[in-house]
Amino acid sequence: MRLSQMLFVTLRDDPADAEIPSHKLLLRAGYIRRIGAGLYAYMPLMWRVLQKVSQIVREEMNATGAQECLLPQLQPAELWKESGRWDTYTKAEGIMFALTDRRDSQVALGPTHEEVITYVARDMIRSYRQLPQHLYQIQTKFRDEIRPRFGLMRGREFIMKDGYSFHADEESLKKTYQDMYQAYSNMLRRSGLAFRPVEADSGAIGGSGSTEFMVLAEAGEDEVLYTEDGQYAANVEKAVSLPADAEPSPFTNYEKVETPGTETIEKMCTFLKCSPTNVVKNVLYQASYDNGMTVLVLVNIRGDQEVNEVKLQNELTKVASQYGASALLKLVVPDADAQSKWAAKALPLGYIAPDLTDDHIKSAKDIAPKFLRLVDKTAVDLKNFATGADTAGYHVVGANWNEQIKLPDITVDVRKARPGDRAVHNPQQTIQSARGIEVGHIFQLGTKYSQAMGATFTNEQGEEKPLVMGCYGVGVSRLAQSAVEQSYDKDGIIFPVAIAPYHAIICIPNISDAKQVEAAEQLYTELNKAGIETLLDDRNERAGVKFKDADLIGIPFRIVTGKALANGKVELVQRKTKETQEIAIEDVVPTLKQWIQEAIK
Amino acid sequence: MRLSQMLFVTLRDDPADAEIPSHKLLLRAGYIRRIGAGLYAYMPLMWRVLQKVSQIVREEMNATGAQECLLPQLQPAELWKESGRWDTYTKAEGIMFALTDRRDSQVALGPTHEEVITYVARDMIRSYRQLPQHLYQIQTKFRDEIRPRFGLMRGREFIMKDGYSFHADEESLKKTYQDMYQAYSNMLRRSGLAFRPVEADSGAIGGSGSTEFMVLAEAGEDEVLYTEDGQYAANVEKAVSLPADAEPSPFTNYEKVETPGTETIEKMCTFLKCSPTNVVKNVLYQASYDNGMTVLVLVNIRGDQEVNEVKLQNELTKVASQYGASALLKLVVPDADAQSKWAAKALPLGYIAPDLTDDHIKSAKDIAPKFLRLVDKTAVDLKNFATGADTAGYHVVGANWNEQIKLPDITVDVRKARPGDRAVHNPQQTIQSARGIEVGHIFQLGTKYSQAMGATFTNEQGEEKPLVMGCYGVGVSRLAQSAVEQSYDKDGIIFPVAIAPYHAIICIPNISDAKQVEAAEQLYTELNKAGIETLLDDRNERAGVKFKDADLIGIPFRIVTGKALANGKVELVQRKTKETQEIAIEDVVPTLKQWIQEAIK
Repeated sequence: MRLSQMLFVTLRDDPADAEIPSHKLLLRAGYIRRIGAGLYAYMPLMWRVLQKVSQIVREEMNATGAQECLLPQLQPAELWKESGRWDTYTKAEGIMFALTDRRDSQVALGPTHEEVITYVARDMIRSYRQLPQHLYQIQTKFRDEIRPRFGLMRGREFIMKDGYSFHADEESLKKTYQDMYQAYSNMLRRSGLAFRPVEADSGAIGGSGSTEFMVLAEAGEDEVLYTEDGQYAANVEKAVSLPADAEPSPFTNYEKVETPGTETIEKMCTFLKCSPTNVVKNVLYQASYDNGMTVLVLVNIRGDQEVNEVKLQNELTKVASQYGASALLKLVVPDADAQSKWAAKALPLGYIAPDLTDDHIKSAKDIAPKFLRLVDKTAVDLKNFATGADTAGYHVVGANWNEQIKLPDITVDVRKARPGDRAVHNPQQTIQSARGIEVGHIFQLGTKYSQAMGATFTNEQGEEKPLVMGCYGVGVSRLAQSAVEQSYDKDGIIFPVAIAPYHAIICIPNISDAKQVEAAEQLYTELNKAGIETLLDDRNERAGVKFKDADLIGIPFRIVTGKALANGKVELVQRKTKETQEIAIEDVVPTLKQWIQEAIK
Repeated sequence: MRLSQMLFVTLRDDPADAEIPSHKLLLRAGYIRRIGAGLYAYMPLMWRVLQKVSQIVREEMNATGAQECLLPQLQPAELWKESGRWDTYTKAEGIMFALTDRRDSQVALGPTHEEVITYVARDMIRSYRQLPQHLYQIQTKFRDEIRPRFGLMRGREFIMKDGYSFHADEESLKKTYQDMYQAYSNMLRRSGLAFRPVEADSGAIGGSGSTEFMVLAEAGEDEVLYTEDGQYAANVEKAVSLPADAEPSPFTNYEKVETPGTETIEKMCTFLKCSPTNVVKNVLYQASYDNGMTVLVLVNIRGDQEVNEVKLQNELTKVASQYGASALLKLVVPDADAQSKWAAKALPLGYIAPDLTDDHIKSAKDIAPKFLRLVDKTAVDLKNFATGADTAGYHVVGANWNEQIKLPDITVDVRKARPGDRAVHNPQQTIQSARGIEVGHIFQLGTKYSQAMGATFTNEQGEEKPLVMGCYGVGVSRLAQSAVEQSYDKDGIIFPVAIAPYHAIICIPNISDAKQVEAAEQLYTELNKAGIETLLDDRNERAGVKFKDADLIGIPFRIVTGKALANGKVELVQRKTKETQEIAIEDVVPTLKQWIQEAIK
């Protein structure tokens, strides 16, 4: 392609609303244009990158025997009601766009396709003889994001490959899951990315095991916890670890002490001269379920620890049926507004005891008709601990479970693991932290959707069983941007060769110089003929502008038909290293061929 | 691909809700599955067909220098308000899905992308030096169809290639339009379709000239009028022709005659012993504009002719500004409901005169505050004609324009051309009719959108001018189904080689026969290695079932590793002709290579 004929416009300055380097660079280099909040036009260069990523994804998927298809983007609400996800996806924090069509039917814009594919499978799969099956698609998805940002990272439209597999048993699922683990690793490696597979929470998708593929980058929205020995890596939402041991308690006798102005753990420990590890901290939440039920939740946790809200949500989801609900819609964390509501019900915030009295529960009934207490495992082992006395300005010290305060039979893990903790698999290993961009996520769904939607098959024994499912997603547009986030310098993007829009760019320093033009045109023809995708910068611009643009858009190899032509040579510049060499014209094609092969092998 | 591993299910019976052969066949052969009204899953075989069509489209577009991109499917309402199309596309008969996002902004699901691309061009194109430009995309579009039907033909989601070109002047536009005419002809020819380019109405897209590419098929929703000499072809919505001459009038004197019970032209002509060509027919309509204005419209037309409502809508759109409106929203044709409303206003239906009296206009003011009379050219030349007397049960005969009834200065063409008419370019040629499926449509838009949205550039003289635009659409999914509509037999689909999901299918008649399996496996490997896309039917099914399925899904060439193996041969069957021959195993690859090359050249 000739730049003179391309719709090619670069910006000198960083666009105002772009927050992270890759977003700024993609806008400045003209790869994307903003059309609305979280909505971007993929311009011709970007589209080439996305096509290359898609092709790598497709090749890796096909190699596993998965079959490409395309499912509708509009999805009838009935399917989501069958699976039980309509409310969670459309109400409260729901991120699904929904609309009413001209016949007054509700339809949704697909953020994911478990329902549609299960509907197809229910229709088509009857017997174990048809299994396993794995269908995938590469498609634009929609999410009504609360705060679209970071360009393609968190857009309202994004391109995803999503695949769904169907199995007769868990063993077959696990095999495909392993194949996908490998295929996803291959995709990211072939795209030229540094990444890490991590254990992950399954979130609204559900199922048992799941792995996220994290591209490592400072601007990543996710925190990954890992150990140096490479034996453990998990999303912080899912991570487990061993906290530091509690210090010995300075308290020997149980007593209620006046502790004015000590609403925080820090103030209280200073006042009582104890460690936060001697404290049972009691945190209030409010949970809303899909049947309208609201539950007041009190978590007991060791004073130096934080509650992991994702783990807490999972616990609250597990008990949904106790409240006649099928899904948790929303967890209200104790913000100022919630706190003042609770304080108005005479809950002594900052001094709450590990359990609420019947009076408190009763007085808070119009906020939440039900009450649930959850005790984190970190609180269980404490002896002679300090905690709230259920009276403003007072704490108790030297307390013990089942002496002054009842300990329920069931305790939970709702604790946030953090760097510096010891690893569970080997306490010698210390937990480390890194930032990551979640680019892929693979799930062992099990029978969650097939059971809800009645997608069954007849097994070898002639019994009707629900299909065992897996699902596997990779963000194609997100992967493309994460490559930029991982690879740029002060002059612009440094695209990995495998997904760069073009391999090479020929710059003609002076288009009035017939010799320069002639050499460039000839190379342009030869390179493209040799399968080396080449841009020709034949614009009537100064050489400096052309070099700046070539650097900004990040084409791996730049060829300059300049002064060296006198010696039958051109200048060859590697974008990544800025290494420059003069090379005989006839050596350009074989040299680039070799460099490209080495880069994408 | 092995059929035993594919999600491959064919149906024995025609699905209940499929109306046309291609829809039935695609469902029966398992190419598509219905997910909701007008919503289909493209199963793996269908997806391969669509990918092949897309690739042909892409190659033809790229050859013209057009650049592929991808624009968002969600479009901010503001852009459609700028162009003035929001109301026409979302209200009344509007076919655009619209929704309100979580920030209470209106967004639409793109049925077309003039607004988005003009917004991009406004932002990026500043100078004539950047022109011409042509961007295109291959994308799923959305239409909230009143009556989704015929499978992919009129779905609520469909895949389209839409391209938009920008020019400094009309001459440059015309060149690209010609290039697109050629590219579209190439696409359809290469896809193996019989088609006809026809003059077309530009409809809601607007602009001056436009050409539709019609795939000829009985089940086509469109009527094409053409002449045998190949000099004329047009969509009936747009077509012009010369009607048969009027017969001499039997009336010599003007008089009002009692004609009881003659509300139709037929009854009236029988009663008065005259030809419909002696009659001026007066038809009432009701037009609603986007500013809420309603206009009562009376059309005078020769009695044997019909009103072309598309032409009438265009005339009513032209005069929108007279009523302070910018677009026509709806044209109500005189259905029973409208008729009874009008009758209640004492309009003597069946006996209406060529003009309404002031009293009539006044009495109908609450139906329509404005009144417009349009005279079709076919009515103008009539002498001594018969027409309504403005009194129920009475007509006038022997009337003449500007004697008894005023003829306005401006007359229009709102007449429907029809088969049997004479051609305008050569009255010796008779107009013929055929059914067609509109698969492509190319438009010379001019400055409609650039002017409305302020997308300007600086020309060579330094003046700021609106960009001159063209747009070009081809229905990828519709094209694929129209290929089936044009090519099937009692046994199933006969896919053109160029867009068939696979070139060949190997059927193993008996999978317990090791020799059959061995020969088939070897051929399967060799064929795929040679680039001949081959399916292997290795299912544990009877030979008859396999042959039936192979015929149903329409793979061009079938190879049977059966009895002939004893002589080192296999059976080779051509799907289209059912021609069968035995051929030496080693000749299979070269023979198929040659056949495929011949078929797609």
